Amino acid sequence: MKKEKFLNGIDVERLFEIMNILKKHPELAKFRFRAQNTWMNSWHSRSIVKGFYGAGKEDVSRNFPFIFDNDQPLILTGDNKGPNPLEYILNALAGCMTNSIILQAVIKGIHVEEIESEIEGSFDLRNFLGMRNDNKVPFEGIRIKIRIKGSKISADEKIILSELGKESSPVYKIITDAFPVAVSIEKCPYDD
Amino acid sequence: MKKEKFLNGIDVERLFEIMNILKKHPELAKFRFRAQNTWMNSWHSRSIVKGFYGAGKEDVSRNFPFIFDNDQPLILTGDNKGPNPLEYILNALAGCMTNSIILQAVIKGIHVEEIESEIEGSFDLRNFLGMRNDNKVPFEGIRIKIRIKGSKISADEKIILSELGKESSPVYKIITDAFPVAVSIEKCPYDD
Repeated sequence: MKKEKFLNGIDVERLFEIMNILKKHPELAKFRFRAQNTWMNSWHSRSIVKGFYGAGKEDVSRNFPFIFDNDQPLILTGDNKGPNPLEYILNALAGCMTNSIILQAVIKGIHVEEIESEIEGSFDLRNFLGMRNDNKVPFEGIRIKIRIKGSKISADEKIILSELGKESSPVYKIITDAFPVAVSIEKCPYDD
Repeated sequence: MKKEKFLNGIDVERLFEIMNILKKHPELAKFRFRAQNTWMNSWHSRSIVKGFYGAGKEDVSRNFPFIFDNDQPLILTGDNKGPNPLEYILNALAGCMTNSIILQAVIKGIHVEEIESEIEGSFDLRNFLGMRNDNKVPFEGIRIKIRIKGSKISADEKIILSELGKESSPVYKIITDAFPVAVSIEKCPYDD
């Protein structure tokens, strides 16, 4: 009986319990995620991700930080010490849509066997190199191809899952809508 | 003399050479970055990043792939095997804006000593959990605080660098504008 508690590796009872709590206490749905980024040299920077605020309190469940490096490939004068920020965006979108599809499958009681996605972003580097004023350089776009495998999932259900997955993916929404970003320059102690 | 070729760790001559080439041959500015994502279990997925197309050809300079994991923290029924996709977005934005600020400093001949940024994204999880139809749940936003250190950079120059950095950051543009994403469901061999 205990086994049935889980679907697609997710504790269904606990998930539904969380959703019911959030309906009654929407303030607990507010999450604030964070990263701290330090420029190392050239195009190389390093981010540390650990704590976050959620469910009404500061979360301390992570015992260690996640650390990851951004860099550029050799052809862009980088040292290839990590993927570049655009490649991190592609990972975030693919990972988020996979999460959303799994969530929708759990809600519908559908057992998923595999999900794989190939994602490609086309970008014109003139946008980055301050050459945008020369002419209207198009920014291109992202394409994601998703394969969902499940012996009991019909082709139609796969389309429905991916549509619902799009609608409920925060990263899909952040990228396809105009999402607000506020930038501020902090003073250094010795400024002025 | 050789030392002066570099500013902020970047090979300035080579960078300006690239920019001149792109002015004459804009087709070389087209880059296609890629990731392949595989669902592991529950909220855990893994991305592989290696090859990309750029400067008119398939790039083969990376000898090894970058591999990274997405997961959710314990409180969101995850196993904490990696940052979640929203945290990857924060890293991408901070890393990209740092790149853009460094680039603008190089173009202006400004020596930068340090850049650090703290980035925080506020998200309402009801958007993710398919509870958006209950009411109009706001999606919140991202705040990034940047500290630029350089003994010869005035406070005004820091503001200018960050403004130019915003304008030339692809990830800033992807997030704050409506960026196109095309999703397709690929058929599995045994479908229909």
